[in-house]
Amino acid sequence: MRIAHIAPPWISVPPKNYGGTEVVIHNLVEELVAQGHDVTLFAPGDAKTSAKLVSFFPKSLLEKGVPWPAHLEAFYHLYKSLEHAQEFDIVHTHLSSSSDLYIFPLTAPLATPHVTTLHSRFPFDRVNIWTGDADYLYMEWAPYVPVIAISESARAEVEHELNFVGVVPHGLPMAQFRPTGRKRGDFFVWLGRFVPDKGVHLAVEAAKRAEVPIILAGTIDRYSQESVHYYHQVIEPLIDGKQVRHFGPANMKEKISLLSRARGFLNPIQWEEPFGMVMIESMALGCPVISFARGAAPEIIVSGKTGFLVQDLDEMVACIPRIDEIDRAVTRMHVEEHFSSHVMAEEYVEIYKKLINTWDEMPRPLAAEPVMSLR
Amino acid sequence: MRIAHIAPPWISVPPKNYGGTEVVIHNLVEELVAQGHDVTLFAPGDAKTSAKLVSFFPKSLLEKGVPWPAHLEAFYHLYKSLEHAQEFDIVHTHLSSSSDLYIFPLTAPLATPHVTTLHSRFPFDRVNIWTGDADYLYMEWAPYVPVIAISESARAEVEHELNFVGVVPHGLPMAQFRPTGRKRGDFFVWLGRFVPDKGVHLAVEAAKRAEVPIILAGTIDRYSQESVHYYHQVIEPLIDGKQVRHFGPANMKEKISLLSRARGFLNPIQWEEPFGMVMIESMALGCPVISFARGAAPEIIVSGKTGFLVQDLDEMVACIPRIDEIDRAVTRMHVEEHFSSHVMAEEYVEIYKKLINTWDEMPRPLAAEPVMSLR
Repeated sequence: MRIAHIAPPWISVPPKNYGGTEVVIHNLVEELVAQGHDVTLFAPGDAKTSAKLVSFFPKSLLEKGVPWPAHLEAFYHLYKSLEHAQEFDIVHTHLSSSSDLYIFPLTAPLATPHVTTLHSRFPFDRVNIWTGDADYLYMEWAPYVPVIAISESARAEVEHELNFVGVVPHGLPMAQFRPTGRKRGDFFVWLGRFVPDKGVHLAVEAAKRAEVPIILAGTIDRYSQESVHYYHQVIEPLIDGKQVRHFGPANMKEKISLLSRARGFLNPIQWEEPFGMVMIESMALGCPVISFARGAAPEIIVSGKTGFLVQDLDEMVACIPRIDEIDRAVTRMHVEEHFSSHVMAEEYVEIYKKLINTWDEMPRPLAAEPVMSLR
Repeated sequence: MRIAHIAPPWISVPPKNYGGTEVVIHNLVEELVAQGHDVTLFAPGDAKTSAKLVSFFPKSLLEKGVPWPAHLEAFYHLYKSLEHAQEFDIVHTHLSSSSDLYIFPLTAPLATPHVTTLHSRFPFDRVNIWTGDADYLYMEWAPYVPVIAISESARAEVEHELNFVGVVPHGLPMAQFRPTGRKRGDFFVWLGRFVPDKGVHLAVEAAKRAEVPIILAGTIDRYSQESVHYYHQVIEPLIDGKQVRHFGPANMKEKISLLSRARGFLNPIQWEEPFGMVMIESMALGCPVISFARGAAPEIIVSGKTGFLVQDLDEMVACIPRIDEIDRAVTRMHVEEHFSSHVMAEEYVEIYKKLINTWDEMPRPLAAEPVMSLR
């Protein structure tokens, strides 16, 4: 199958540091290539990929210093990428940040089958803390833009009438995420960006009350006042270097090592997280997850089998001593079966096929005279 | 002729307060209607016009509180307006602020003849004080987008290879700009926004050195730190309430009254101003202008006939006592002949006709398959 992936142009694929959407695009593209598809990635020139790479400028926009609200270059990337649409059987775009909303008007009239994955949450019409209502205007094109959600929870919380054609959870390259097999530690772990939504302070509180050590492997987002403030005001005072330790930001190797050795992962999220990549990363390494049952967590964790779903802090504290009841091999196998890149790619290809076969029945926007000329 | 004007969606047409582009669009649209053309104005619902009005949302974006960098709603306005292109003989767009650069990709492939007026200066890829280089990317579409400059000077300073098809200076509704005939004052005047580029402090210095009174009728731009700072630090200390008076912001009636009574207008501009509306307003009321010979000033003032073009402050001081050599009726007549809405509209219509007649010879962007569907 000739597949085009049009990545958002802000962060490199794969990302040098943080970039959830870009990790998923990378995993998916690599796996589609491995499965024998003819894949082209449209992304800035700093992408690293096994697919064919088509770039309209050399550097990812954030790397280059372009601020998020400056949309002109991002629009150019989308527009130029879509000029190639007809060279493919399917064009796959990705809704991640504000400038990706142009995908709606730009893909709605395409003759080539296309689909977009909703990676983040509405509203997209945002500039720093300001929020506008342009999203409602763009919903004019929603009937003509097939959308895939990353979880049932993410799909349910969208207030707009999107044309959802499926749910495909994120997947990991399982060969890369392999337990190290080194000696198990006695500690629990939390890993991610320091933001209040992640509930890091509650993970620490749970560990303290259950009298187990906890290691935090966190990134402070220097571009986010909220993150810097949360770390210094709330988290830092909790770190005692004994029961509560701070590892600092973990690279891939360190992440794999930490999760392989940890008894369990604590995930007291404070929001409806649309997926939660770190949960499948943890489980892939055999490390069970105790998570608040919010957002996509109930779709990711099988309570009692790959970890525990809990309603509140008391329940989390109560589950901590029971963590060794969970079979780590079964936990990894669950990811292998449901959240591997392999499974993700197969699920996407199924949807591609269905879209291609039914494309002629799809509603198309009315047009008196075709004058815009995306190829 | 069926003419579409697509106004930028940020400021109402005409503007409630400041808005140079919107004044010009208003003058032009009103005059085209008066000349019997079938004109449609695409603008937010707070426009007041004799043309047919088509709006995609009720309020101008700045009025609504949308920040300049938020492009999604502005793009929607442009895109939706252009869906109507084929209903017209000519589509006229206006390049004024950053989000207007989407005009390049959106109009380049249009089958309907179109033209855009360059009202402001490059670069358009700007967010607050940050400047990017997306303009260079957008020049890909420049060969397919006919552009009109507002002065030879404005045309000459563009570093990009635009497809210039003419120069049309701004024009005033002469019936509205009529000298009051009231008793002449002994004062000179400066009128505009307080920013260093306008050289207001030099106007005051010239008046002082020439020992004539000067009245400043200025607007402090509260959204611009530079303007606030310039007024309070540089201008305010110069105001003595006798030789140097501050009138405050002048509405249309006050502006006409002031300029009708002033002996002359001092315009020591510190930049290559692409037009300079206040010069023709002043001259329309018979008030001669002494201006630094920069930007479009030499195209607007006939030195010795409608005022004086000077090289520096010394020359300005030397010309002040000679101001009464200028015939105020001749000064007004010069505007009547060259810078009236009537003349402006006729010049635009000439260009529309030429474009319509030669449209088939215009280069068009290559397109394998027309799939974008602007009507």
